[in-house]
Amino acid sequence: MKRVCIVGCGAIGSLYAAHLARVAEVWAFVRREDHAQALKRDGLRVSGKRAFHVLMKATTKPDELPDCELGIVATKATQVDESVSAVGHRFNQGAVVSAQNGLGSEEIIAMHTRGQVLRATTFMSGTKHSDTHVQLELDTATWIGPFEPRQTNYALVKEAVDLINAAGLKAEALPDARPAQWSKLIFNASVNGASALTGLPHSPHFADESEASSLGHLLHDLIDEGKEVAAAIGINLREDPWEMNKIGARTNHPPSMLYDVRHQTETEADFLSGAIAREAQRAGVRAPLHTAVYRLIKGKEASWTFKGENREL
Amino acid sequence: MKRVCIVGCGAIGSLYAAHLARVAEVWAFVRREDHAQALKRDGLRVSGKRAFHVLMKATTKPDELPDCELGIVATKATQVDESVSAVGHRFNQGAVVSAQNGLGSEEIIAMHTRGQVLRATTFMSGTKHSDTHVQLELDTATWIGPFEPRQTNYALVKEAVDLINAAGLKAEALPDARPAQWSKLIFNASVNGASALTGLPHSPHFADESEASSLGHLLHDLIDEGKEVAAAIGINLREDPWEMNKIGARTNHPPSMLYDVRHQTETEADFLSGAIAREAQRAGVRAPLHTAVYRLIKGKEASWTFKGENREL
Repeated sequence: MKRVCIVGCGAIGSLYAAHLARVAEVWAFVRREDHAQALKRDGLRVSGKRAFHVLMKATTKPDELPDCELGIVATKATQVDESVSAVGHRFNQGAVVSAQNGLGSEEIIAMHTRGQVLRATTFMSGTKHSDTHVQLELDTATWIGPFEPRQTNYALVKEAVDLINAAGLKAEALPDARPAQWSKLIFNASVNGASALTGLPHSPHFADESEASSLGHLLHDLIDEGKEVAAAIGINLREDPWEMNKIGARTNHPPSMLYDVRHQTETEADFLSGAIAREAQRAGVRAPLHTAVYRLIKGKEASWTFKGENREL
Repeated sequence: MKRVCIVGCGAIGSLYAAHLARVAEVWAFVRREDHAQALKRDGLRVSGKRAFHVLMKATTKPDELPDCELGIVATKATQVDESVSAVGHRFNQGAVVSAQNGLGSEEIIAMHTRGQVLRATTFMSGTKHSDTHVQLELDTATWIGPFEPRQTNYALVKEAVDLINAAGLKAEALPDARPAQWSKLIFNASVNGASALTGLPHSPHFADESEASSLGHLLHDLIDEGKEVAAAIGINLREDPWEMNKIGARTNHPPSMLYDVRHQTETEADFLSGAIAREAQRAGVRAPLHTAVYRLIKGKEASWTFKGENREL
């Protein structure tokens, strides 16, 4: 895998792009022209747990992008369809990693490429200070496995994992990546949903079960409900999302959906609580809490553009 | 009933005070000194469906208030304890009407007076333009009945109802006021909760059930859950809260809890979704959705003062 394209360079995409540029030819495919120009001109600087600087290619134009052996899609889940429909054919002879939160992005990628699709879950985290400067915070593994409906060639999974490890990040190949993906899905759907609706960052409230009104009870119930859905479709979780929640609740980290709500940009609810609601329905089990959270978030999104006049009876 | 005190003069309290001042000696007991001074100096003007002007007495000092035959407590549910603890003894020989939203205010009033306690539910509505000007909008009935644990004298219920009717407002005496109170409780808990969490006023979204993600499904589920709790404790609702919701959803009216959330003032959640959650627990049935809404709103209230620094791992 000598030529790699990172689709979307937020914090996670920038971290992949910068590290992989040390071991491969990296193209950044981004949406804003000034973003592409800045990357072409100044490259990308990494700070934090590691400090280095790299140069790379970058473009906003699908026609400028050459065929690549590996793609890593690192946009928000809500932008996968738009971005991969434009460049998916560039990976027809290679492999594409889906690094989105939640469930459903692999299916969208598969619609737009004949290449191999890889199911990935990452706990890496960072802060993007500018288009050309990203700070590495949490250097945890990216778990990568096959996308079952397409019977992904496992040798390609291992090749992608080897390349990411060679670049200095951590990755692990899994014959079945769903237990990892579902652990993070349940964690993310529960924490992001409660955060978006309360306005709280991932604070100690999320693990507090001292009173009947305490938010920690709701998190526990959401996570238990998610586990029941996972069990109903035969998935044994890799990690316990409640334990993940307890650790995260010490950080006061603002989850991505809180950022979305504050800036009134479309959330990933369809891929998080909405995905759990859909999977529950397919499996014939109930998921009333995730379904309620999903509908409340969609209602919140609707409130940003609703202009109805008060018409008292 | 020749002397009446209205405790709290927001929109509803001002409407009671102005109308009753036409047929009785009315005292307004309010919290702000400038509010009391304005009422004493300028009286109260009613506009809208009806137009008139009255003079009345007003005070912020419990010691200035004489004994009254009737009290109408019209504060927010969250302020009943503070206000009635100060003046409850002035009604020891009379009766006190609880006109709050939700459930639980009668019990608080009963702790602070030896007078008769009356359980009331009102659908009257208005807009308070200033301390001395209130606009009458919806001139619907106040339903009044006994507070069962105190075995209220029903003759007093009828006397209060007669006085309110003589004043030009609508009131109806009910041997059991709980079916009316619970109809409004379920309606209010569901609509206020969804509004506070989404930021939407009571808009058409609340009755829309066209998509799996539609908010109307959540309202339907919340209302059905409320009905199940009512049934479990033996209450036959007077009106169907779902029908009330469908009508209200045409108005784009901002419910009181949306106002509270926008202004970051304590909500009535303990008396609405919290009350349904508590009653469900007492009856040994489940109310997962109202319990979830309750915890989310308490979490939202907590977010207004939470100052935790982001401590990434």
